Amino acid sequence: MISKTEIIVRYAETDQMGIAHHSNYAVWFEAARTDLIKKMGMSYSKMEENGVLVPLLELECKYIAAAHYEDVLTVEAKVSKITPVKVEFVYQIFRNKDHMLLSTGRTLHGLVDSNLKPIHMRRDKPEIFQMLQDAMEE
Amino acid sequence: MISKTEIIVRYAETDQMGIAHHSNYAVWFEAARTDLIKKMGMSYSKMEENGVLVPLLELECKYIAAAHYEDVLTVEAKVSKITPVKVEFVYQIFRNKDHMLLSTGRTLHGLVDSNLKPIHMRRDKPEIFQMLQDAMEE
Amino acid sequence: MISKTEIIVRYAETDQMGIAHHSNYAVWFEAARTDLIKKMGMSYSKMEENGVLVPLLELECKYIAAAHYEDVLTVEAKVSKITPVKVEFVYQIFRNKDHMLLSTGRTLHGLVDSNLKPIHMRRDKPEIFQMLQDAMEE
Amino acid sequence: MISKTEIIVRYAETDQMGIAHHSNYAVWFEAARTDLIKKMGMSYSKMEENGVLVPLLELECKYIAAAHYEDVLTVEAKVSKITPVKVEFVYQIFRNKDHMLLSTGRTLHGLVDSNLKPIHMRRDKPEIFQMLQDAMEE
Repeated sequence: MISKTEIIVRYAETDQMGIAHHSNYAVWFEAARTDLIKKMGMSYSKMEENGVLVPLLELECKYIAAAHYEDVLTVEAKVSKITPVKVEFVYQIFRNKDHMLLSTGRTLHGLVDSNLKPIHMRRDKPEIFQMLQDAMEE
Repeated sequence: MISKTEIIVRYAETDQMGIAHHSNYAVWFEAARTDLIKKMGMSYSKMEENGVLVPLLELECKYIAAAHYEDVLTVEAKVSKITPVKVEFVYQIFRNKDHMLLSTGRTLHGLVDSNLKPIHMRRDKPEIFQMLQDAMEE
Repeated sequence: MISKTEIIVRYAETDQMGIAHHSNYAVWFEAARTDLIKKMGMSYSKMEENGVLVPLLELECKYIAAAHYEDVLTVEAKVSKITPVKVEFVYQIFRNKDHMLLSTGRTLHGLVDSNLKPIHMRRDKPEIFQMLQDAMEE
Repeated sequence: MISKTEIIVRYAETDQMGIAHHSNYAVWFEAARTDLIKKMGMSYSKMEENGVLVPLLELECKYIAAAHYEDVLTVEAKVSKITPVKVEFVYQIFRNKDHMLLSTGRTLHGLVDSNLKPIHMRRDKPEIFQMLQDAMEE
């Protein structure tokens, strides 16, 4: 299962180099992750209301070509790996007008409760573990 | 009582016009407000832990001259008005190297509890009301 | 002429109060302004390539009700005033699910060239002046 | 040569998890990089005025423990690798009050001219190449 999220580069996201600042890619990956989780049949808002937070442990991003103001981009996201306590997502960002690949990325997440204590997903939240596994295999 | 907060303009804060993006001024005002509250003898973190949040009701900002990457700025903040339920702060941003005034601003805030319900400050949080009043008159 | 821009509140845009941070509204107004200018038959990117920049002189925002993560919002923008050297836009932000008005705003802009020197719009860029005037009266 | 940059976590940098949002770490790394380059005896502003831009090719960040609003952090930065066309920096973020390591990071950069065309640093900008090499070996 792959989700596709459309992003239009905002003026505020540019920097004085005239391109989208690299810190925004993490924000775009996150917007894509929100959509992917929704596509799996859940909502990340609901997960948090139920006391499950999914903070980042690791972030990786490669910048292949620059994005510019008003560019329309598509961010693809999917689940790439899952363990009883961690989940990994991978991302690709394409520029719509020429389908050029601008960026690839990876985020690794743990699951924690509202006190930021780790949750053993497979044991304590098997329905979330299952949902992520199904999404990966689909 | 006036607080002074030093800010160095970050690269990420610039835009493709080559100047600091206007949305950052609200963030710099807020950093100055944090310092002012600390100078009053409180901490905004502590206020929130005690269930008092101070969201914005209104924001005004005038942009007089642009700020650039690596510019060292001083943000001055003070309490300008207080009612039993609202508090207003005003700000001035100066560029250190030539003392030029770059911006003036104003924020109006209500006090709410952790469910975002309004708090009658003078009645229910008289110590905060007093602290703000003292800071204004000093 | 009024443009309508859809925004989905991003996780990165929330703060520890659990609501969208107030500094993002200026960014959303700007995204709406981009769309409005496109609807007028121009592109702000093209204007900048032709050496016309439109920085902010003033920003005003009222926060009526909070926006939350994953909320779908509509930002309405229109030209509200125009002089030979300045242009003013006004904004309204609605939450889609209940049409509640969350925020109103106003931005005032000058026109400058790529050295940030003011441009007399009616005299030196009459086509832009006309376009803005048409958009206001429509 | 290692630079140390002090950061105070801003309210705007928090998210609804109650911690500093992960996208800010890239911004803090960049602030540290600015300081490191200044410590080497250059200014990144000057480099850009001379037509040398240093965009990111890769970003990596590990999140070990969360940072909170008002936390005072120290970001350490140094040059870790250099080739004729690329330069790599590494970072560590510590929380001042208990010296806890919160994050480690790495950024890889190319050098480009103002049209975003790659520059062969050792051949065309030997003084920058030398400065980075000296900083690494010091």
